[in-house]
Amino acid sequence: MLELDRLIQLLSKLPGLGPRSARRAALFLLKRRESLMEPLAAALAETAAKIQPCSLCGNLDTADPCILCRDARRDQGLICVVEDVADLWAIERSASYHGLYHVLGGTLSALDGVGPEDLRIEPLVKRVGQNKAREVILAMNATVEGQTTAHYVMDRLAETGVRVSRLAHGVPVGGELDYLDEGTLSAALAARKQLQPE
Amino acid sequence: MLELDRLIQLLSKLPGLGPRSARRAALFLLKRRESLMEPLAAALAETAAKIQPCSLCGNLDTADPCILCRDARRDQGLICVVEDVADLWAIERSASYHGLYHVLGGTLSALDGVGPEDLRIEPLVKRVGQNKAREVILAMNATVEGQTTAHYVMDRLAETGVRVSRLAHGVPVGGELDYLDEGTLSAALAARKQLQPE
Repeated sequence: MLELDRLIQLLSKLPGLGPRSARRAALFLLKRRESLMEPLAAALAETAAKIQPCSLCGNLDTADPCILCRDARRDQGLICVVEDVADLWAIERSASYHGLYHVLGGTLSALDGVGPEDLRIEPLVKRVGQNKAREVILAMNATVEGQTTAHYVMDRLAETGVRVSRLAHGVPVGGELDYLDEGTLSAALAARKQLQPE
Repeated sequence: MLELDRLIQLLSKLPGLGPRSARRAALFLLKRRESLMEPLAAALAETAAKIQPCSLCGNLDTADPCILCRDARRDQGLICVVEDVADLWAIERSASYHGLYHVLGGTLSALDGVGPEDLRIEPLVKRVGQNKAREVILAMNATVEGQTTAHYVMDRLAETGVRVSRLAHGVPVGGELDYLDEGTLSAALAARKQLQPE
């Protein structure tokens, strides 16, 4: 059963699937040959052939520039910088941002040998100049790597004179204080908002 | 991005992947287009086209009868009955069984509307007669459904006069007593083995 072993081996490389769950997934697929397995094979082949990163923002789409960059209703003076396409999707799901994006493609990491030239930082600086962008929002993850990368990007953007902001830190909506880490709580305290009109 | 949405939707149907991990998997695949995504698409299509259930035992293979049923070195008088192909694989990995298998394709379940005619029980009875089998080992899961199914299969095999056995219950190798349930412990006590020669 060489074919099946190879399928299981490939499935086990997906994030969230180990060797055991890859075996389960392969059997699950074989039981749903027409309803799931063949459509999945076709969708994988089609997506692999058609979807490309946008040359402007790094988003994934069948068209280049992508659907977001082509949307004239979006605020062309606002660029939100994210680490990865997944973060772009997360912000789009919030339906509360209507500017453009810029996907860096990761974070600076000395350990993994990722330097500034491996990320799309230079294209961002150029784009800010060309777009005459009004504001750049740094929306990196609130991790050490994310914040290091944000600092570096901010330094590089200094020459353009653009306004640079970052996401607010604080208590997540629906979050319980008892379960929050000290860092979040102290950030939320420091950034507290006055409730009465001044 | 209709193509990508469809891929994510299909991936999210796999066991162990939800909508969120399906998104991660899709992005992961798009970053490894040639090394993983295209091979996976090809492996899925090839496996869906080639792998079929064995008409004798129900195992999955490219050939029918399957590689296990065609192996003349296997004990043809011994049939191990399992619920699913995954269980067959698990026993094969133990490398301690050299007879034939019979995959039922599930368990009896009044709730899910699975009756005896939905499982490969009738073919088992016929096969035991035709093979002149010496012994049938019931290797169903130690769950209520598995044991109910085992009882039913045992009753159906009575007419053939074949010897019927089941897997031993007891402490798993490497298991700690403190973490075991009462059922396993009482089964292990009841089936205790004398250590001195009688």
